[in-house]
Amino acid sequence: MNHNTGQATTVCDIELSEFLIMAEEFHGHISPGVVTGGFLVDAAQRELGHSLYLNAVTETVVCLPDAVQLLTPCTMGNGFLQVLDWGKFAVTLYDRESLRGARAWVDLEAVAANPVVSSWFIRKPGDQKVDKDPVVQELLTYGPRLVKCRAVDMKESLKSQGKVLTAACPSCGESYPLRFGDQCLACQGRAYYL
Amino acid sequence: MNHNTGQATTVCDIELSEFLIMAEEFHGHISPGVVTGGFLVDAAQRELGHSLYLNAVTETVVCLPDAVQLLTPCTMGNGFLQVLDWGKFAVTLYDRESLRGARAWVDLEAVAANPVVSSWFIRKPGDQKVDKDPVVQELLTYGPRLVKCRAVDMKESLKSQGKVLTAACPSCGESYPLRFGDQCLACQGRAYYL
Repeated sequence: MNHNTGQATTVCDIELSEFLIMAEEFHGHISPGVVTGGFLVDAAQRELGHSLYLNAVTETVVCLPDAVQLLTPCTMGNGFLQVLDWGKFAVTLYDRESLRGARAWVDLEAVAANPVVSSWFIRKPGDQKVDKDPVVQELLTYGPRLVKCRAVDMKESLKSQGKVLTAACPSCGESYPLRFGDQCLACQGRAYYL
Repeated sequence: MNHNTGQATTVCDIELSEFLIMAEEFHGHISPGVVTGGFLVDAAQRELGHSLYLNAVTETVVCLPDAVQLLTPCTMGNGFLQVLDWGKFAVTLYDRESLRGARAWVDLEAVAANPVVSSWFIRKPGDQKVDKDPVVQELLTYGPRLVKCRAVDMKESLKSQGKVLTAACPSCGESYPLRFGDQCLACQGRAYYL
């Protein structure tokens, strides 16, 4: 289950110090979420072992997708990373051929026993804004002990393989998938812009 | 509208040759989508000008999010990139304070006049698999002429600012947002894993 009992020096065979630099450059800052994400991805990768056809699913849009994009070949745009907006800080790495995978998540009981990390992770009504730097420091020491991981099997590969038939939207003239109906979603009233 | 009439040598002030190396490293290969995405982001960035509070929206999950993540500080995990699964190859860059933005999209009429690019971009039933390399070469020469762009105003910032109240799911014990109900979405039957 939890492979990490001591203080980590690497995530996915990358020196932790190097990962923090990569995170700052890509993510914009070293957040508790991207650090926790690094340990989650590391745990899932160790459990799964080598995979030629690696895919990833994150169960939150926050921070964790960037840890996956930094530490694996799976990105949002190449389709090997799927992002679910479930608000759960958990990630699954899986092989899309064998459908064998490993899911890593935050151990809420372990977090609850750590006042510094729980001040960030467990949000209650009326909580004040948390200073992130001490949380990051605490995570760098104790993060791997706050992670659980286990092998899972996928019901199916989440990367869509089918061809998408497109046409010009009769209203705006832009290309859109015909499965959405007679017009593109923007022309159906969902445009976010004026 | 379309700022590019000659052959581009840069995207967002990065040498095109360097962008292709970045794309290969991050995205995994130099795809027509990520190259087109580079020209779209470049056009939107030129139209918008400098922004201290840059956010981005892509209207497809395919390729384009990686161009944004390579060329701007906006990533999936830091929340400054929103990805809509609308199947439209279009991107908006905007300033989340002023809500001024610029939206760039693929000019379908211009694409239709280019047989190589249209063999990739315009998909019809029964189409064979397209060799991507000649499409990339064609895009490197003609890509900027296939892009349209215009200033837009955002209805609202798409980055959520609110606090998310969480609790332990009574079924699996993991942290989840209370707005989803009495259990997390996985325990409500939506788990993708066994």
